[in-house]
Amino acid sequence: MEDFSKWYHNILEEAEIIDSRYPIKGMSVWLPHGFKLRKYILKELKELFDKDHEEVLFPLLVPEDELAKEGIHVKGFEDEVYWVTHGGQKELNKKLAIRPTSETAMYPMFSLWVRSHIDLPMKFYQVVNTFRYETKHTRPLIRVREITTFKEAHTVHSNQEDAAKQVEIAIELYKKLFDMLAIPYLISKRPVWDKFPGADYTMAFDTFFPDGKTLQIGTVHNLGQTFAKTFDIKFENNEGNHEYAYQTCYGLSDRVIASVIAIHGDEKGLVLPPAIAPDQVTIIPIIFKDGGEEVMAKCNEIESSLQSSGIRVKIDDRDMRPGKKFYDFELSGCPIRIELGPRDLAENKAILVRRDTLEKIEINLEENYTSKIQEIFEEIAINLKNKAWKHTEENITHSSNLDEVKDIVANGKIVSVDWCGDEDCGKEIEEITELDILGTQAEEGKEKKEKELDTKEPNTEEPDAETRTTCINCKKEAKYKALIAKTY
Amino acid sequence: MEDFSKWYHNILEEAEIIDSRYPIKGMSVWLPHGFKLRKYILKELKELFDKDHEEVLFPLLVPEDELAKEGIHVKGFEDEVYWVTHGGQKELNKKLAIRPTSETAMYPMFSLWVRSHIDLPMKFYQVVNTFRYETKHTRPLIRVREITTFKEAHTVHSNQEDAAKQVEIAIELYKKLFDMLAIPYLISKRPVWDKFPGADYTMAFDTFFPDGKTLQIGTVHNLGQTFAKTFDIKFENNEGNHEYAYQTCYGLSDRVIASVIAIHGDEKGLVLPPAIAPDQVTIIPIIFKDGGEEVMAKCNEIESSLQSSGIRVKIDDRDMRPGKKFYDFELSGCPIRIELGPRDLAENKAILVRRDTLEKIEINLEENYTSKIQEIFEEIAINLKNKAWKHTEENITHSSNLDEVKDIVANGKIVSVDWCGDEDCGKEIEEITELDILGTQAEEGKEKKEKELDTKEPNTEEPDAETRTTCINCKKEAKYKALIAKTY
Repeated sequence: MEDFSKWYHNILEEAEIIDSRYPIKGMSVWLPHGFKLRKYILKELKELFDKDHEEVLFPLLVPEDELAKEGIHVKGFEDEVYWVTHGGQKELNKKLAIRPTSETAMYPMFSLWVRSHIDLPMKFYQVVNTFRYETKHTRPLIRVREITTFKEAHTVHSNQEDAAKQVEIAIELYKKLFDMLAIPYLISKRPVWDKFPGADYTMAFDTFFPDGKTLQIGTVHNLGQTFAKTFDIKFENNEGNHEYAYQTCYGLSDRVIASVIAIHGDEKGLVLPPAIAPDQVTIIPIIFKDGGEEVMAKCNEIESSLQSSGIRVKIDDRDMRPGKKFYDFELSGCPIRIELGPRDLAENKAILVRRDTLEKIEINLEENYTSKIQEIFEEIAINLKNKAWKHTEENITHSSNLDEVKDIVANGKIVSVDWCGDEDCGKEIEEITELDILGTQAEEGKEKKEKELDTKEPNTEEPDAETRTTCINCKKEAKYKALIAKTY
Repeated sequence: MEDFSKWYHNILEEAEIIDSRYPIKGMSVWLPHGFKLRKYILKELKELFDKDHEEVLFPLLVPEDELAKEGIHVKGFEDEVYWVTHGGQKELNKKLAIRPTSETAMYPMFSLWVRSHIDLPMKFYQVVNTFRYETKHTRPLIRVREITTFKEAHTVHSNQEDAAKQVEIAIELYKKLFDMLAIPYLISKRPVWDKFPGADYTMAFDTFFPDGKTLQIGTVHNLGQTFAKTFDIKFENNEGNHEYAYQTCYGLSDRVIASVIAIHGDEKGLVLPPAIAPDQVTIIPIIFKDGGEEVMAKCNEIESSLQSSGIRVKIDDRDMRPGKKFYDFELSGCPIRIELGPRDLAENKAILVRRDTLEKIEINLEENYTSKIQEIFEEIAINLKNKAWKHTEENITHSSNLDEVKDIVANGKIVSVDWCGDEDCGKEIEEITELDILGTQAEEGKEKKEKELDTKEPNTEEPDAETRTTCINCKKEAKYKALIAKTY
């Protein structure tokens, strides 16, 4: 892709995802087609979360004193909180913050709700809009001032082990979601200077964008007892004593939708995994002077048949040339189109075209074409996933020479390095390369054992003696594999 | 109900609908059970709207200059708009309003979207939170500062007739929704001094609460060309000339949920129409010392069988006495409970209890009990509707003596009067009675003809000569039936 940024802005407009002409910088309107894409992604997400979490809804506004309670947390957000100071013509007695995230809205209530160890764990989530007064350059769905789709989960536990386990459970949930969306991810533990303000540690998902930059698309935080102490969230334990609770929180945003668009899309438009495509099949009648009614009747029959199997299908019966309809089909990201003309009808067949490969497949209308289409949906999902993962994996390069790191990244790659894990050394690496350390990675393929979960660093294990290496910068013993990238 | 207000606050807390202890007046937290109730109501609402409207999502914040553009409109809201004045530590160049409603957020975009008569009508809706800085006494879900569930639809038309017809279409949509929720309604045309700021006229739905007051639960506004002129929404007509568009908008809020709770609930708790109940069936195993496993196995079997028919069912297998489970069932508003003990199992039967009547019905587990339960759902829905409508109708009294109106209303009724329709006279009636004129009513049973829709007052027709009466106040000729009530 020649100019990703231009392509991205164009596709959001042309595929009618959002309209960014709204008269406030960093805030956009979800258009009907984009809204549907968002809706089906949220449907999948909610199905995953409803199994084990309760959905709730907290107020948008947070009193100033609650926001200020947790010192480290508020410091992380104070430059980007929007403040409500007036109601009507009147100045408010107490300023109200528009939530940048909901810890300080939720935890005063958790303090009222949590009573006994019997009530724990508690697992809640909500999907809301949140706000950040971004001073950097904004970019639709990526860096915005109104995050319209903020999924945040918050859990409360009676011990440290359960909180650490919940971090792993959340990571598995997010992996399922991203796999379903065919979005590749790199999971790492953020360096201490980049963790969530107030958290013990932060695990993060980054995805690799077509322009060679990585985008943070999900984070999971182990909050330890920090917020419980600030907001007085205590429970009575088995022995009848009162203890501070252990908490986690984890979040996703509009960036998940941005990734689906950016990672799968091509020069012709959107390419969408079937599970979340607003329309999953578009039927295009090819009508000449004669035989139009019969063709339309068959199209309607196919439509009903697919609908009764729960497939989202539409007939494009607009009065225009098929070429324009094919163009719109490709732009919209609909996974399959079916073309049917009088000659096809005579032979009781139709032409099916896959959006991802543009491959043409003849289908026999006398056979069970619905299950054939379901199969192709599966194939499309797998193809998108494999293609995206292959592209990501091909673009991760190991380096042990700090001087070349910047160049490799400038060529659109992610660099994996050996690192000592020391904060000063890490910051020096970031300064020298003018890049970010995403974080430290778990060793691939190595199964994590249950007992290791009760440490605070479940995902970052020291390498075995025989594989010991030296830090790319300070040359001391390297403890971690770290990823370095240009980030959004 | 002795003290409705106390009952209402208690039930919101005990049935775990919302938690109103959030530290900002007029803003509450939706708890899991309440959230589900809200979710299923929204599901029904969205199904109705998705047939003919496109769902969109506009930003929460509105620039001050856009909000101020439509003079009459802004005057109606200026005392209750929350203002965002700071981003981080910095004062914003331009203040931002938190939407009290979205006309001024949407219509600048409509001005970009509307081009030709071919694009019209456009029909959009969104479900969002909106804010009003209420200075009156707040009441959860009824008079709040954060309206968490604001469904607003906005339509654009190429002529006055279509806009007037859309008002009627919207009224029919709302009737369907309220009928499904078994909420009775009185439809009237609001007096001019009580219409939506900026509208040509406002049609309103009011419902009758157990405390004798009426609550506005839905409004439909014909906006004429007022906003089109302000926001420059023009289309090219058939002749190639540019014309201002015609608009309508219509909205519902949390009050719909409040009405479901208040109108159907009883001393034991919630009573919910099956379509929107979070759990539709609760199975309660009655377990003694022996035979527990067989009873549980049968309960699981019934659960699966009901689930496969799409019924939302749960088994209450908590380790506690059945009495407490019955209590919780009644509190939660679940429409049906099924009790199954070892003796029932031996006879292959179970006891079903309807929440609305508490009637016990024996069901034969060898027969198709799923369809039996579906039938009972129907009966419950009809029973709730009939009961609620009967109560409303019994409490509307006609009066032709202004002196007695206040007393009748003080006794918990709505009064119907003959009225001249004159603004000064109407305001005098309100002053004398210290009550509100809800509005003027269409004659019941009289079919509205298509041609009548192109007037601006489709729902308020002059009575025939033989039925002429005099105004309750000024004694001039009465043109309308008007409703007078104590309103929320």
